[in-house]
Amino acid sequence: MAIISPKQYIESLKDGRVVYLNGKRINDVTTDPILKVCRDWVAMDYVLSNNPDFKDLLTDVDEDGEPVNFALIPQRTKADLLRLREVVKLWARVCFGKPPGAKFVAKDGLNAVTVVSRRIDKKYGTNYAENVEAYRKHLQRNDLSFAMGLTDIKGDRGLRPAQQIHPDYYVRIEEETADGIIVSGAKTHISQAPLCNEILIAPCRAMREDDKAFAVAFSVPANAKGITMVSAEPEINAETSLFDHPIAKSVFINDATIIFDKVFIPKERIFLKGEWEFAGQMAYMFANFHRLSAETYKSMELELFTGAATLMAEYNGIEKASHVRDKLTWLVMYAEAVEILGKAACEYCTAEKDSSYVYPNPMIANICKYYFANNWHTATKYIQDIAGGIVATCPSGKDYFNPELHDILDKVFGGKAGVPTEHRLRMVKLVRDLTSCYEDVLTIHAEGSLEAQKLSILALADFDRYKAAAKRAARIEDGTRHRDFVGLPAFPPDLK
Amino acid sequence: MAIISPKQYIESLKDGRVVYLNGKRINDVTTDPILKVCRDWVAMDYVLSNNPDFKDLLTDVDEDGEPVNFALIPQRTKADLLRLREVVKLWARVCFGKPPGAKFVAKDGLNAVTVVSRRIDKKYGTNYAENVEAYRKHLQRNDLSFAMGLTDIKGDRGLRPAQQIHPDYYVRIEEETADGIIVSGAKTHISQAPLCNEILIAPCRAMREDDKAFAVAFSVPANAKGITMVSAEPEINAETSLFDHPIAKSVFINDATIIFDKVFIPKERIFLKGEWEFAGQMAYMFANFHRLSAETYKSMELELFTGAATLMAEYNGIEKASHVRDKLTWLVMYAEAVEILGKAACEYCTAEKDSSYVYPNPMIANICKYYFANNWHTATKYIQDIAGGIVATCPSGKDYFNPELHDILDKVFGGKAGVPTEHRLRMVKLVRDLTSCYEDVLTIHAEGSLEAQKLSILALADFDRYKAAAKRAARIEDGTRHRDFVGLPAFPPDLK
Amino acid sequence: MAIISPKQYIESLKDGRVVYLNGKRINDVTTDPILKVCRDWVAMDYVLSNNPDFKDLLTDVDEDGEPVNFALIPQRTKADLLRLREVVKLWARVCFGKPPGAKFVAKDGLNAVTVVSRRIDKKYGTNYAENVEAYRKHLQRNDLSFAMGLTDIKGDRGLRPAQQIHPDYYVRIEEETADGIIVSGAKTHISQAPLCNEILIAPCRAMREDDKAFAVAFSVPANAKGITMVSAEPEINAETSLFDHPIAKSVFINDATIIFDKVFIPKERIFLKGEWEFAGQMAYMFANFHRLSAETYKSMELELFTGAATLMAEYNGIEKASHVRDKLTWLVMYAEAVEILGKAACEYCTAEKDSSYVYPNPMIANICKYYFANNWHTATKYIQDIAGGIVATCPSGKDYFNPELHDILDKVFGGKAGVPTEHRLRMVKLVRDLTSCYEDVLTIHAEGSLEAQKLSILALADFDRYKAAAKRAARIEDGTRHRDFVGLPAFPPDLK
Amino acid sequence: MAIISPKQYIESLKDGRVVYLNGKRINDVTTDPILKVCRDWVAMDYVLSNNPDFKDLLTDVDEDGEPVNFALIPQRTKADLLRLREVVKLWARVCFGKPPGAKFVAKDGLNAVTVVSRRIDKKYGTNYAENVEAYRKHLQRNDLSFAMGLTDIKGDRGLRPAQQIHPDYYVRIEEETADGIIVSGAKTHISQAPLCNEILIAPCRAMREDDKAFAVAFSVPANAKGITMVSAEPEINAETSLFDHPIAKSVFINDATIIFDKVFIPKERIFLKGEWEFAGQMAYMFANFHRLSAETYKSMELELFTGAATLMAEYNGIEKASHVRDKLTWLVMYAEAVEILGKAACEYCTAEKDSSYVYPNPMIANICKYYFANNWHTATKYIQDIAGGIVATCPSGKDYFNPELHDILDKVFGGKAGVPTEHRLRMVKLVRDLTSCYEDVLTIHAEGSLEAQKLSILALADFDRYKAAAKRAARIEDGTRHRDFVGLPAFPPDLK
Repeated sequence: MAIISPKQYIESLKDGRVVYLNGKRINDVTTDPILKVCRDWVAMDYVLSNNPDFKDLLTDVDEDGEPVNFALIPQRTKADLLRLREVVKLWARVCFGKPPGAKFVAKDGLNAVTVVSRRIDKKYGTNYAENVEAYRKHLQRNDLSFAMGLTDIKGDRGLRPAQQIHPDYYVRIEEETADGIIVSGAKTHISQAPLCNEILIAPCRAMREDDKAFAVAFSVPANAKGITMVSAEPEINAETSLFDHPIAKSVFINDATIIFDKVFIPKERIFLKGEWEFAGQMAYMFANFHRLSAETYKSMELELFTGAATLMAEYNGIEKASHVRDKLTWLVMYAEAVEILGKAACEYCTAEKDSSYVYPNPMIANICKYYFANNWHTATKYIQDIAGGIVATCPSGKDYFNPELHDILDKVFGGKAGVPTEHRLRMVKLVRDLTSCYEDVLTIHAEGSLEAQKLSILALADFDRYKAAAKRAARIEDGTRHRDFVGLPAFPPDLK
Repeated sequence: MAIISPKQYIESLKDGRVVYLNGKRINDVTTDPILKVCRDWVAMDYVLSNNPDFKDLLTDVDEDGEPVNFALIPQRTKADLLRLREVVKLWARVCFGKPPGAKFVAKDGLNAVTVVSRRIDKKYGTNYAENVEAYRKHLQRNDLSFAMGLTDIKGDRGLRPAQQIHPDYYVRIEEETADGIIVSGAKTHISQAPLCNEILIAPCRAMREDDKAFAVAFSVPANAKGITMVSAEPEINAETSLFDHPIAKSVFINDATIIFDKVFIPKERIFLKGEWEFAGQMAYMFANFHRLSAETYKSMELELFTGAATLMAEYNGIEKASHVRDKLTWLVMYAEAVEILGKAACEYCTAEKDSSYVYPNPMIANICKYYFANNWHTATKYIQDIAGGIVATCPSGKDYFNPELHDILDKVFGGKAGVPTEHRLRMVKLVRDLTSCYEDVLTIHAEGSLEAQKLSILALADFDRYKAAAKRAARIEDGTRHRDFVGLPAFPPDLK
Repeated sequence: MAIISPKQYIESLKDGRVVYLNGKRINDVTTDPILKVCRDWVAMDYVLSNNPDFKDLLTDVDEDGEPVNFALIPQRTKADLLRLREVVKLWARVCFGKPPGAKFVAKDGLNAVTVVSRRIDKKYGTNYAENVEAYRKHLQRNDLSFAMGLTDIKGDRGLRPAQQIHPDYYVRIEEETADGIIVSGAKTHISQAPLCNEILIAPCRAMREDDKAFAVAFSVPANAKGITMVSAEPEINAETSLFDHPIAKSVFINDATIIFDKVFIPKERIFLKGEWEFAGQMAYMFANFHRLSAETYKSMELELFTGAATLMAEYNGIEKASHVRDKLTWLVMYAEAVEILGKAACEYCTAEKDSSYVYPNPMIANICKYYFANNWHTATKYIQDIAGGIVATCPSGKDYFNPELHDILDKVFGGKAGVPTEHRLRMVKLVRDLTSCYEDVLTIHAEGSLEAQKLSILALADFDRYKAAAKRAARIEDGTRHRDFVGLPAFPPDLK
Repeated sequence: MAIISPKQYIESLKDGRVVYLNGKRINDVTTDPILKVCRDWVAMDYVLSNNPDFKDLLTDVDEDGEPVNFALIPQRTKADLLRLREVVKLWARVCFGKPPGAKFVAKDGLNAVTVVSRRIDKKYGTNYAENVEAYRKHLQRNDLSFAMGLTDIKGDRGLRPAQQIHPDYYVRIEEETADGIIVSGAKTHISQAPLCNEILIAPCRAMREDDKAFAVAFSVPANAKGITMVSAEPEINAETSLFDHPIAKSVFINDATIIFDKVFIPKERIFLKGEWEFAGQMAYMFANFHRLSAETYKSMELELFTGAATLMAEYNGIEKASHVRDKLTWLVMYAEAVEILGKAACEYCTAEKDSSYVYPNPMIANICKYYFANNWHTATKYIQDIAGGIVATCPSGKDYFNPELHDILDKVFGGKAGVPTEHRLRMVKLVRDLTSCYEDVLTIHAEGSLEAQKLSILALADFDRYKAAAKRAARIEDGTRHRDFVGLPAFPPDLK
């Protein structure tokens, strides 16, 4: 019973939630033609875990022998991480590079609150850890989809929560009652939230004492009173075809904005409540666990991307041109380096103190993310260069399939002999979707901006080792000693 | 009478032309909600030339004292080129970086056929030059809009016209009659053709003798029998607002595909007919004149782009961050270098032999185009980095202006104190339009691909001078002598 | 009499100056085998101005009709700047990219003190301007060589002069006497100072009131009591041949360190003495005039560089390889862009208020310098890639010319048939000199570091214009108005 | 007895070999002041294998229980490769990034001839494998140093061996005798050959039948009659101090040119003799084994490099500047990515068919090498930018240690308070050595050029997988099926 069907998932969304899209309140999120794209993408999580071919990979059993989604179980070994990597690769490969999000993001938040709640309990005698475990059971037993509400709306980015003009720029405790708390404020970029059962909320930054009201973590059903979700503007409309937008019509991540207006959270679902010095730890710990994400799914996206570039070259008849070969080589290196680095981050994983959990090596994972994101725009330049101006000027599929035009368009848009025109046009449309502004922004901002990775790398760097090497070469004796260098013999040697 | 009004221009388009868009034949191109975007953009040419503030810049008088659009007069001096540059900058600045195309592209084709027709007449005793001049008069007297049909649909890019499977991959002479010729085939990427009065056709490449049937240049009204135009797929739909797509809703270039099915061209409108050895010259000469284009309008686009980046930084409250300052500095350099190089190409212009015409210095113009196009994707990365994830996740303007949501969204999407939320969101939407896939592809493919510029630069390079300098430094005496080095004294000198 | 001969220049250096090199005091700087390289390079200034072919370019006449070196006359028009550019190009082309420095750097310092001294006189009633003019006459009448002492040794770069541990990190006034001042401290990177007659000293940064003692500008003969010059470590030794180091053996810039130990400066040679608020202006004004330098000589260096890459490709037989053609194309673009930008900086020159002087457009000149310096390392990668591993592993010319080895080495080091082995090896050695660490560092640090250019560009940028363009496109009305946009018509137009 | 001492190694070199350096025949290579630098560097191999701390890592025992250098044993498992990686890292860390070459390069050649000799024997019934094993025993029992002679001198790179003007452009069989063969020709870039006991020769490229005479592999003592070695031109001279050149004075790789003039090779030392179709296999197999090299030692070089950049920033007092932090972050990423990729190449190693050997994963190893080499020049730009102009202009250590100057130079060259001036100057000199032309060229050309890596990556790429992913996303059904995609469910799903 703990692995539900896609239909059960869909039914569970008809719960009166408040969702807006394109200027209208959507009464049933499961039937709206645009939201349905998001719905079907999230549902792939359930399609796959019910598929006998993938059940062994995607599900496990809990202590009671009940089947449970593997993503809802914390990772305790390198092998767990490598398996989780395979899970994410499967999700991503099936869905054209974008893992459907029934648990994809929020599992990492669950791990984060698990680790940090124990620390708070230890210091303050709270019982957050118990709450977390009860919540985990709830998720496992009902195979729920849940979204991760991390990023606050932030207002002026130069100011802390307590310094903002509007208190609602960060989610906050407005009032405390006997049974729980009343929260208000807003979170943004919350992927697939309008199509999830639950929302897990945690702080996105370190805080100080006067930010206390903003130091809050909890979970809440998506249809709770006082919650309003405003969908991101979609790239497609109701008439868009899979031909014209093969990816955008299949995947609508719907990074929504969630507004909380005096939402009641019962005690049992609270994981942080004013212990401000732990706010930053939650954010940081989420990042630690979440680092496997982009480092894995992007590898699948690049597999697809490199394939599209290769096929465009072949369909256009230019696959032998030296500049095209050069660009394809670059893309292969890019795709494979992301795969290797992402995998290495798991191979050399880090164990979290005070817990039995592991997560990807932060240095390697940050390097991988930065490498991927920083080179993305070069990749898009190359594929657009290979595909040609037709990416910008191709007629709509509605014209191509219009019987008045089909035969003549099929003739004039032919490329290399032997390649069906339809294949060439489909690939052109795919390239357009792969190089949209949306993809660009997702690549550089999701899972932390380029600057965030740089700061992490700087903080994690082993400068003492580097400096010891340089001092030894420059023959500088300043009293510092480093374990990797202390026993090395003199060089050049004294051999007479 | 030779400067017509925007309304006269619009009326002139109701001529029964065959235009398809999004799967449907459009009966009146002036009233369709999507094509209207293209119509109004092209009409700006007429709005401006009727504006007293700009009349001096944009119009001149012909030999009969009649007013004539300056763009329809060939450039004979550096001063003409610098004025033309100001014309294009005005057009582009008014229309957010995209000069409306009533004459913008095809004027360069007209110059090209003017120069080359004389060469053909000289060799073969034809009278093409006379045809060209008559056509120019026709354009001037009626202030017509005309599109340039240069790029053939090409099929397999590795093959010449005569080698293709379908003869229709290049426009060709199907039959010659007493009064003219019958042509078939297809051209693609023909900017704003569905909203122009006339189409000027010329070959896009060098040809050999067996390509003779494809060596053809002529002009034809857009509503001629046998012409079918298929619009590019637009980025917007009928419901799109200026708020959500400030540029895409204002400018629809509509790089259409034009199919010729046995179209009759009368003798008087033919400028090349089988003289295959001149086909390449026409293409090359078009490029010479057209080089002023991107080198000028992109400068205006970058002005806008850099402004958007600056304002996003300010609206987000991050304008003092060192990485943001670094990116803004890069954008300033990029924008200003394009302006300087584009202007220098006019300052050091080239005079075409056998004519009294001048065009921008090809070496400088190619360097400018390459520099611009090659760095574009870095620019988009920077502006997206500064603007933030909101570029991908911002709700639709329909939500923002929905009274049920407006006040709360206006609150939660606030940025830096003092900046109206609406301004911030408008800038976010502008950034999205500026970094669309369409803009990317336009930048690297319009006016010739990156590889085309590289080939031109290699061909134009003064290697003898470079080699002379290196040989002198390496003390290599191999008998070669170069005028810039022959009189230089020995170094080091022999001073005892 | 005001244009002296190379021999007169050499004789003038035998003046008892204190110069150290490689651990030894050099008694006669004109005969030391290493310093002689610097001597002969500086002497080229005199060789050229005595050459009838170049006299018209390099010399002019003063108000008394006396011949005078053109570089000692301030530039008052665009034509002057363009001529100065030709002067620098000639100097640089003759000397393999490095203009001999008899006046090359210090002329810009002379212009700077000329402009700023008048401002000081105006404010304080001093008579520095008169001193400057007398000094200029002295230089002109004796055709002296002079070096520019700008960069202080600086100590901790995070501190101002008055905050440093040692007062000697910046040149300073130690004492004031009835007849002048006594100065101490040190300057560094002072090109060719050990081989010049005079040294012109000015501050290298803005100062505050407590830095008053460091706000000092003056001129002093190189042999003045208390001056010690320590030469930079040369790249060559006494046995080095022109074959092995065609450039390093011809050009020794000798960026020396100059130590002042209680040096007396008479009143007539003082141009700034404690007026601290003008210190920064002198540094900044020097930079304005000096901007023509790198932007001009680097163009000649790149001519040579590109030639060396081209010849290496030909000599190795790889000039048709597509990756080699690609790299050569890049180098051509790089060389030509530097020439165009450098020239444009003169074409659009800036007139200095309070003076009749002009200097290169600072925005363009900074872009040019940054572009050159930032791309240099890519250029070196390309030429090293083309030249091959032989650049690192080639035997010494002493082996090649050793009769025991010559014939066999001449055979085995042959490249493409028809190319003499000696030519190939000479080119290999030239590439090594062109890509030395010295060249790298000179390129990025001379005339200001990369960061310095970025700061200038940011400060000079016309952000108001950029922002006006973006606001207009985003339809933001915030009350700001910009002259370039205020009269533009609405777009899209309202045409019904 | 099979691990010899450094002194034994040195003694073994006094064997009458013919070595030229700087124009002179060197009678005793162990005492020449320049060659001694190379000697001491190679000797570190012996210093380390005799050091008790490293014996376990560096040595093993053979089947007879005799100690043997680990590098002389082939790698058969991932664990062997990871250990070899540790060996190379130790060698490189001790010697400032450059593993001393007693066996470093030639061990990979030995593995290559081992694998390929069996294939030849299988096809032709030769007994090369036996020869190889006997030779290996000879090396092991005497702990010999041996150099790898792979790269031929090549002449015109566009021609195969048999097409060259001179037959000596490739090493070749001149004559066959009853006991062996007589070889002539030349090899170049042969690291440390003048200081090794033996030379192992193999072809560097694929050949055709008419190249038969050039398809030859063998080993030969360095003092064999007819062998002349010409050293590379060193960067230092006899007077150079460790202060001025901390690396160049410690490491002289001496990539020599070796000329063979009718050298006799006895049968027992021949591993290939005319079986031209195996020539390319030997070259390729060498590359497979050698791929561990740069991917490992460069990691140690970058450790040192990053340390030098960090210390220069601190010593100059600019370590907090944002642009400096940015550059240090980049260097950390660069250093760590090279380490991760190099290690991953061993983790995912490849087993060679027809053998029990393993070598690093070629795709990963090539990506690592390309990444390292392609970014090197950016790294040098960054460190030079941080270190400052002093890298080019610093006086010689002879001046610094000259008692007449020491105190004053020690004062004026001070940097950040608390940092001894000598430390700062030592670091400046280290930076100069790290960014020399020699280092640049070594980085991009050693272990194969950038183009060579690109060709390998293109050849190894799994394009079928990439294309399958793209076709699935574009909904292209063309009959191709790929095992990774064939079982994936439809997406979007059909859920009504």
